[in-house]
Amino acid sequence: MFLEMIRSEGLAHLSYIFCDAGKAAVVDPRLDCEIYPDIAIKNEARITHIFETHRNEDYVTGSRELAAVTGAVIYHGDKLPFAYGTGVKENDSFNLGKINLRVIETPGHTYESISLVLTDTESSEKPLAVFTGDALFTGSTGRTDFFPDKKGEAAGLLYDSIFGKVLPLGDGVILYPAHGSGSVCGRGIASRDFSTIGFEKYYNPALQIKTKQGFIDYKTREKHYMPPYFKEMEKLNLEKRQLRDKIPHPYPLESDSFAQLKNDGAIILDIRSPEAFAGAYIPGSLAIPLDMISSFAGWFINYSKHVGLIVESREEMEKAVRRLFRMGYDKIPAYLASGLSEWETSGRKYDRIPAVHAGEIVRRITEKEQFILLDVRELSEYEESHLPGAQHLFLGELPGRLNEVARNKPVTAFCGTGLRAIIAASILKMHGFKEVDCCLGSMSACAAIGCPVKKGR
Amino acid sequence: MFLEMIRSEGLAHLSYIFCDAGKAAVVDPRLDCEIYPDIAIKNEARITHIFETHRNEDYVTGSRELAAVTGAVIYHGDKLPFAYGTGVKENDSFNLGKINLRVIETPGHTYESISLVLTDTESSEKPLAVFTGDALFTGSTGRTDFFPDKKGEAAGLLYDSIFGKVLPLGDGVILYPAHGSGSVCGRGIASRDFSTIGFEKYYNPALQIKTKQGFIDYKTREKHYMPPYFKEMEKLNLEKRQLRDKIPHPYPLESDSFAQLKNDGAIILDIRSPEAFAGAYIPGSLAIPLDMISSFAGWFINYSKHVGLIVESREEMEKAVRRLFRMGYDKIPAYLASGLSEWETSGRKYDRIPAVHAGEIVRRITEKEQFILLDVRELSEYEESHLPGAQHLFLGELPGRLNEVARNKPVTAFCGTGLRAIIAASILKMHGFKEVDCCLGSMSACAAIGCPVKKGR
Amino acid sequence: MFLEMIRSEGLAHLSYIFCDAGKAAVVDPRLDCEIYPDIAIKNEARITHIFETHRNEDYVTGSRELAAVTGAVIYHGDKLPFAYGTGVKENDSFNLGKINLRVIETPGHTYESISLVLTDTESSEKPLAVFTGDALFTGSTGRTDFFPDKKGEAAGLLYDSIFGKVLPLGDGVILYPAHGSGSVCGRGIASRDFSTIGFEKYYNPALQIKTKQGFIDYKTREKHYMPPYFKEMEKLNLEKRQLRDKIPHPYPLESDSFAQLKNDGAIILDIRSPEAFAGAYIPGSLAIPLDMISSFAGWFINYSKHVGLIVESREEMEKAVRRLFRMGYDKIPAYLASGLSEWETSGRKYDRIPAVHAGEIVRRITEKEQFILLDVRELSEYEESHLPGAQHLFLGELPGRLNEVARNKPVTAFCGTGLRAIIAASILKMHGFKEVDCCLGSMSACAAIGCPVKKGR
Amino acid sequence: MFLEMIRSEGLAHLSYIFCDAGKAAVVDPRLDCEIYPDIAIKNEARITHIFETHRNEDYVTGSRELAAVTGAVIYHGDKLPFAYGTGVKENDSFNLGKINLRVIETPGHTYESISLVLTDTESSEKPLAVFTGDALFTGSTGRTDFFPDKKGEAAGLLYDSIFGKVLPLGDGVILYPAHGSGSVCGRGIASRDFSTIGFEKYYNPALQIKTKQGFIDYKTREKHYMPPYFKEMEKLNLEKRQLRDKIPHPYPLESDSFAQLKNDGAIILDIRSPEAFAGAYIPGSLAIPLDMISSFAGWFINYSKHVGLIVESREEMEKAVRRLFRMGYDKIPAYLASGLSEWETSGRKYDRIPAVHAGEIVRRITEKEQFILLDVRELSEYEESHLPGAQHLFLGELPGRLNEVARNKPVTAFCGTGLRAIIAASILKMHGFKEVDCCLGSMSACAAIGCPVKKGR
Repeated sequence: MFLEMIRSEGLAHLSYIFCDAGKAAVVDPRLDCEIYPDIAIKNEARITHIFETHRNEDYVTGSRELAAVTGAVIYHGDKLPFAYGTGVKENDSFNLGKINLRVIETPGHTYESISLVLTDTESSEKPLAVFTGDALFTGSTGRTDFFPDKKGEAAGLLYDSIFGKVLPLGDGVILYPAHGSGSVCGRGIASRDFSTIGFEKYYNPALQIKTKQGFIDYKTREKHYMPPYFKEMEKLNLEKRQLRDKIPHPYPLESDSFAQLKNDGAIILDIRSPEAFAGAYIPGSLAIPLDMISSFAGWFINYSKHVGLIVESREEMEKAVRRLFRMGYDKIPAYLASGLSEWETSGRKYDRIPAVHAGEIVRRITEKEQFILLDVRELSEYEESHLPGAQHLFLGELPGRLNEVARNKPVTAFCGTGLRAIIAASILKMHGFKEVDCCLGSMSACAAIGCPVKKGR
Repeated sequence: MFLEMIRSEGLAHLSYIFCDAGKAAVVDPRLDCEIYPDIAIKNEARITHIFETHRNEDYVTGSRELAAVTGAVIYHGDKLPFAYGTGVKENDSFNLGKINLRVIETPGHTYESISLVLTDTESSEKPLAVFTGDALFTGSTGRTDFFPDKKGEAAGLLYDSIFGKVLPLGDGVILYPAHGSGSVCGRGIASRDFSTIGFEKYYNPALQIKTKQGFIDYKTREKHYMPPYFKEMEKLNLEKRQLRDKIPHPYPLESDSFAQLKNDGAIILDIRSPEAFAGAYIPGSLAIPLDMISSFAGWFINYSKHVGLIVESREEMEKAVRRLFRMGYDKIPAYLASGLSEWETSGRKYDRIPAVHAGEIVRRITEKEQFILLDVRELSEYEESHLPGAQHLFLGELPGRLNEVARNKPVTAFCGTGLRAIIAASILKMHGFKEVDCCLGSMSACAAIGCPVKKGR
Repeated sequence: MFLEMIRSEGLAHLSYIFCDAGKAAVVDPRLDCEIYPDIAIKNEARITHIFETHRNEDYVTGSRELAAVTGAVIYHGDKLPFAYGTGVKENDSFNLGKINLRVIETPGHTYESISLVLTDTESSEKPLAVFTGDALFTGSTGRTDFFPDKKGEAAGLLYDSIFGKVLPLGDGVILYPAHGSGSVCGRGIASRDFSTIGFEKYYNPALQIKTKQGFIDYKTREKHYMPPYFKEMEKLNLEKRQLRDKIPHPYPLESDSFAQLKNDGAIILDIRSPEAFAGAYIPGSLAIPLDMISSFAGWFINYSKHVGLIVESREEMEKAVRRLFRMGYDKIPAYLASGLSEWETSGRKYDRIPAVHAGEIVRRITEKEQFILLDVRELSEYEESHLPGAQHLFLGELPGRLNEVARNKPVTAFCGTGLRAIIAASILKMHGFKEVDCCLGSMSACAAIGCPVKKGR
Repeated sequence: MFLEMIRSEGLAHLSYIFCDAGKAAVVDPRLDCEIYPDIAIKNEARITHIFETHRNEDYVTGSRELAAVTGAVIYHGDKLPFAYGTGVKENDSFNLGKINLRVIETPGHTYESISLVLTDTESSEKPLAVFTGDALFTGSTGRTDFFPDKKGEAAGLLYDSIFGKVLPLGDGVILYPAHGSGSVCGRGIASRDFSTIGFEKYYNPALQIKTKQGFIDYKTREKHYMPPYFKEMEKLNLEKRQLRDKIPHPYPLESDSFAQLKNDGAIILDIRSPEAFAGAYIPGSLAIPLDMISSFAGWFINYSKHVGLIVESREEMEKAVRRLFRMGYDKIPAYLASGLSEWETSGRKYDRIPAVHAGEIVRRITEKEQFILLDVRELSEYEESHLPGAQHLFLGELPGRLNEVARNKPVTAFCGTGLRAIIAASILKMHGFKEVDCCLGSMSACAAIGCPVKKGR
C-alpha cells in the first residue's frame, strides 16, 4: 500500500493518491493532473477511482481531465446534480486491493460534502485514516457561509458531521484534509499538513466548544471574504464544460507585439516581486506578486479577458500560469520577453512607486503630515492592530470602492508585509491616483520596530 | 512547519526531514544525502540538526557527510562510544522554530536507541508524532537478536521502551519509524508507511501480548538471519572513517577491458532480470537482480573486491550503484557497455540457465525423476509450505554449505518467485555444478496452479 | 542567433530549430513536438515558421501539432497537394531577425523536396548552412526508389539538385540533413551528424561520380527494402487527419487483465533484450528489442491492432511508446506490470528460446548436423559474407515467406548481432515452428572468432 | 561518432565532448564538469583525453577535476610550465576509435596556445573540424594584448597561426572555437556558434586584411579592458591547487543572521534585476544583475571575502553561484531567504534608487539642469555615440576613480540598457553619494526615441 499527499501551492490545496495491488485512487485531483498517473505508474498501478469530497468553489477540479486519460470513474456526493460522475451515499464502499474506502456524508461546508474512511484490511477492520475534504482541517474547520441566510443551518450540519461522524472514528485515525494553511476555505488552518483525529479533538480550537449551539455561534461569527471568482468555479465544477487538458503556454513577445496585446484590451498582469514593480512598471498594469495570485487574481481578473504577463524568469512564469490555470484562467497568450528590460530599452514609458519604510510612516503620522494611510488587510487583521489614522479598505473590494479614497492627498498603500500593498498601489495608479507610494515591510516592520498601534475599528 | 518522509528503496529505509522558521532537522540520513539539503532549500531552511535514532547495522548512515555540507550537529544516544557526534539522553530537548523535539531512550533493538517526540508548540504542548527508529514499526517491532546470549534482556528492554514510553504518548500520535516493509530489521512490517500509536496499540501483533514475559518469549522465538555485512556496517557507523561524499561512477567498458577487469579478480555482478540472466550470462558471474541487491549483496560480496556490473540500462546501473553504496560498497569501477550484446558479439563464451515452469517441476516430482529441488527461501517460508522432496538451504548460506548439495544429479533452484532462485543458480554454476536450471515463478506459481505442498521441516 | 539540432533516436531523424530576435523556425519537426517550444522559450523566442523539406514516408511529422500550439505557419514544397500548410517555390525567402532562409527546390528523393539555405545577414550575404532534408546526407544521398518505374528519372533529378544547386553553395557551407546513420532513407550514412558541403564534395562516395549517367546508374543499383508502413506514413503526412497531440500513456496491467487484452486480439510486443526474451517469454508474443522498433515495427504491426507491451522498466517502456508513436502507432493501451515476473508467478505458461554461441553453429556445420541456419539480414549483408549453407530470407519478409522455411528440421535464427535473430525466432515460434534457437552474437561473433565464410548468393 | 558543444552562459564559454568506439575526449572543460561524464555515459563512452587549447585567464578550467573522476589524461601546449598534465607539440596525434586528433601550435592569444584538428578517418584522411581555442572565433580573433609590451609580437604570431596553419586546413572545415559572443577574450564575436573556415576566411573582418603588418596594426589598435581577476585565473590554471570538485551550496539565512554575515565583513551581492534593486535594496550592497556576473564580478569582488547573496528565486541563486564558481569564487556561505521581503518585514532599513526614463534625461539636458550624467560603458561604445555632456568613466574602473565624480551634484548612472548603470549606482551609493538615480533603458532607449547624440571623446 502506498499513499502520497500532493501539495498544490498557492491554493494550499491537498490532494491524495493511494494504491494497492495495481489499483490507485485519487481524492480531489487538481486541474493540472498529469502528476497522478505519473505517481501511479511509478508504483505500478492504474488509477481506477477518483473521488471529489465536495464541489469546490476555490479551484477547478481535474476529475474529468484525469478520468479522460485513465478511464477511472468519478465519485462525489449525491446531494447536488453534477453533470458528470456518479453519486455516492453513506456507507458506500470501495476496495482497491487491501484498501477499503467507506463514504460518510459530512455536510456543512457544502450540502453534498463527503468524507472517505480508509481501512487497511490487511492490518485491521478499524479505520486508519480519513479524507475530510473541507469539513475538518488541521487546527480549523471548513467555512459555512456560502449561503448567507443559512449560515446557522450549515454550521449545525458541520457540527453533526464532525462530532457525530468524524471524531468517533477514533483518536488513532490520521487526518487527510483538502487544504492546508493559506486556503480561503478555512480560518487559521495550521501550518503543518499532518495530524490525527486524536490531536485535533483535543487541540483544534473549534472542537473545544462543547455544545452544538456554541459551535454554531462560533462558526456564524467567523468572517470570510467571498471572491467573485467562486461563482465561476462553482459553475466549472458542476456543469458541462470542455476538457481543459492543456496548460496554457504563453509566447514570449517583444515590446511592440506586447504593447499591441495591451492595446487590444488584454490585462497586463505583473507577477514580479513588489520591489521590482516598485522599481519600474508598465503604466496601467496590475501587480499581483506570484505568491498572491491564488488569493487575489480571482478578485480582479475577468474571465473573458486575455492576460499578458510580466515576469522575471521562465520558472516564475510557469508557476504563475499553473496557478491561474487552476483557478480557471486559460486565456494567457503571451508574456513580455526579457522582463521589463525589453520594454525599457524600447524607449516606452514606465512608471515607479516609491517604497517607504515603516519608520517614515511613523514620522509622517507623528508630524501630522497630510496623507492617507490605506490599510488593505482583512478587517480582522485591522481590528487586531493598526496604525493610528489608517483607513481600512479590504484589498479585494478596492476596485469597487475607489470613491472612498480621497484623491486630494498622497496615498500610502499598507498591508501586512507589502505584498498586498503593492497590488493596491498598482490599482490606485491604474485609476488615476497621482501620488501613491507603498510601505514595503508594512505592519510586520511596524511590529518589529515598535510603532504605536490601535485596536478595533 | 514542513515534514517529509524520504523512502530509500531496497533497504526499505525511511528517513525524515522537517523544518520550521528556517531551520531543519534530519532523522537517520542515508549516505547519498544530497536530497536533504535540496528539500531544505526548497523550504527555505538550513539543516542545523541531525539525529541518529540508533547505530545502524543494515546501512551506512550519512550523518557525517550531511554534517560536512551543512554544518549541522549530529546527535545520537549516549550509551555507545561513537567516534563522532554528541550523545543525548532522556528528556534532552531541541527547538526548531515552533517544533520541539524531546529525546526518549528506547533501548531494545540496540542499547543506545532513542526515539524523538515531536511537538508542534504552536498548536499544543502535547506530542503530535514520534520517530521510533527500529523500536516500533508499522505492524512490527525491531529485532532484538543482535547479542545472541542476551536476547531475553534485549526483548525486555524493548518491552519497557514500547509499553513504558512510546505507547503512553497517546493514541493520536503519528508513528514515524526508520524502516518499512522489506527491511531485515523487523519481521512482517506492514506494507504501508503511515500509522499512529493508537492504531498500532490495538492491531500490531506484538503489542497485543499483555505481559512482559509473553513479549520476551514472542521476541526470542523470532528467527532472523544475520548477513555478514552487518559487521562492516557496525564498524562504518561507529568508528572513524573517511567521508564518503561521492557516489561511485562506474565507467562503461567494452568487452576486452571488461574481461581484463574480471581476470584481475573483480566480482562480476549481473543485476539484470532473472529472465535475461537465464537467457545468457558471462560464465563465473554472480546474479543478483536489482531488487535483490539490498537483501543479498551483503551476503556474497567481499568489501575488499572490485565489482564490475552487467546491466540492461543506465538507469538500472545507477540504481544498483546507489544501493550498493548505501551498504558501504564503493569499489565499483566499471560496467559492461551495451549490456551483454557487447560480450556476445566479441565472440566470447556465454552460458545459459534453462527456466522451468512450476508445472514441469510437479511433473518431475510425480514421475519420480532424479533431481534436486533446492529451495533457498528462509526456513520460515519453507516450513509454512514447500513442495514434497524439496531440500532446504537458505540462499545466504549457500556458498558456505555447497557440500550439502549433491553433485551427481541435476539441480533445480527454487524460491518464492524466481528472483532468489536465479541467484542460487548462478552460485551453483560458478562452483562447477553442471546441470542447473531455475524455476521462474517458483512457489507463487505453484500456489497459483495448485501444486501439492507440505508443511514443517 | 541560436541553432540546435534535435536527434530523434530510432529513426535517426534530425530536426532543427533556430532563432534570432525573438522568432524561431523549426525544420522537419517530429510528432512528439513539445521539445521545440521548450527550446524556443529558453531562447526567448516564439516559433513562427515550420518547414517540411519533403513529405516524409518513414515517420509522422509533427508540423500540424506544433502549429496548433504555436500559431506558426507551415511551409513545404508545392509540387504535392498537401492537405495543410503553404506551398513554397524556388527562391522564396523568409527572415527571422538577421537570419535569411531561401528555398531551393531539390527534387529526387521526392518530387516536392526542397532545401533551405540559411544566411546570417549580419555577417555576410553568402550562405552559411543548408538544410538538405533527404537530398544529401553526411556520406550518402537520399534514396530514389519510391517509384520503381521512375528510378532513373528520380536519380537524375537528384543529380541535378545536388550538383546543380547544393554543391555550388560553396565549400564552407554547413550541411544539416534530415537523417543520420541508421535511417532507412539512405544507404551508409556516416555515423557523425556534422559536415560541410566542402567535405562531402570531396569524400561522399556518391559525389565522386563525375557524370550524371554514372550517378543515375549508381543510384538505380542501390537496394532498399520498402517497409509496408511507408504507405501509412505517406497518408498521415499528406491527408487530413486529427491532431495527434498526446503521446499514448499505457496502463500497467496485472497478468489477468493482460491475458485478457491478448485474448481480445492485441499484439503482444516484447521489447526486452534478446537475452531476456530468450530466457522466458509469453507464447505468441512478438520480440522487437527496443533498438529495433523503428526499423521493424513497421514491417510487422498492423495499425488497426491494439498493442500490449512487455518491458523491463518504465524508462524502456516510455522510449518504446515514443518510437512507436512517431511511426503513427497510437493504440497502446497497456503494458504488463512488473516485467515478466508478474506473468511467471501467476502460474501462466511461458516459453524460452535457447541462445547458441557462434562456435556451436560452426560445430554443427562442420559435423554436418541437420538444421536450418536462417540468416535474416539484408541481402547485401548476406552477399558480402555469410556462413556456408545459410539460407537467406530478409527479416521484414519473413512472415510472408514462412512457407520457404522447412518445418522438419531445427531452425537457428541468425543475423548480424542477434538483435534481428531474436525477432525472427519469435515469429517462427508464433507460427508453430517447434525447434527454434537463436545465435546471440551471430555474424559479429563469427567474425571475431574467425569462422569460415562465403560471399555472394 | 558523436560530438556535442557545451555552452556555458555568462562567460560565453564553449567546450566540446566527442566520442567514438567507447572513448571520449573533452576540449577545454569548465570547472563544474559533471556534465561531461554524464554525456559520455549517455553515449556509452569513457572520457580518456582532456585537452586545454591554452591556459585560460577568464575562467577556472575543470581539467583536473574531470581527470580526478574519469582517470583521463590532460594535454596542453608545452610552451608554459603547467603544474599538471602533459605537454604536446606540433603534429602530436591522438586516436579515439575512428577519430584522429592532431595538434597544431597556434600561438598569439597566449604563447602555448594549440589548436586541434579533427579527422573522421572512417570518411577521409582530410580534416573535418578544428578546435581553435582563443585563436579564431566566429567573426573575430583572440585578443593579443596580455603582454602590453609585446602586443605586436603576439599579433604577428596570431597572424602566422591563423593564416599559416588554420586557414590552409580548407574551406570545408568546421570551426569549433572556445568562446562565443559576449566573451571578454575577443571583440565582436558573432552571435552564432557555428561556422566554417571557408565562411570565416571570406567574411571574418580581421581575416580580410591581406598583409601581416596590416593584421598586426589592426590587432594592436584593438582596445580591451583587463579585469583584475585575470591574475587570479592565471594562477589557478597554472599552479598547484586543491581540487574544486564541489559547487558551493549557500544556506538560506533569515535577516538577523544575514545582517551578522554583513557585519562580519561579507560582501552583499545583489543579483536581482535592476528594477528590483531600484525598488528597494540593502544599504551597502553591490548590485550585479545575474547576467552581468561573469563580466563584472571579477572587477569588484575580492577573492578573500565572503559573499552573501540577495536573490529573487532559488533558480537564480544557483545560476549565480555556478557563474561565480567558474570564476574561482568559492566562499559563498549564504543567501537571504525569501528575497528582500525578509529584510523589509524585519524592520531593517532599506534604500531605493529612482529609475529615470531616457526622455527625462533629455529634458534635463535640454533645460540645462545641474547633474552629472555618468556614462559607464566601454570607451569604444561612448566614442561611437553618447549623450551631449555625458561624463565617461568605464564601470570596471569606477571604484578606483570615484574622486573623478563630483559630489556636489546629483548623479545619473547611464549605460547601454540600464544593467551596468544599476551596478554603477550601487557603487556610488555605497561610497556615500547622496543623490543617485539610474536610467533604465539608457542608450538603447535614447536611440529608440531619437535623442540627440555626439560621437568621439
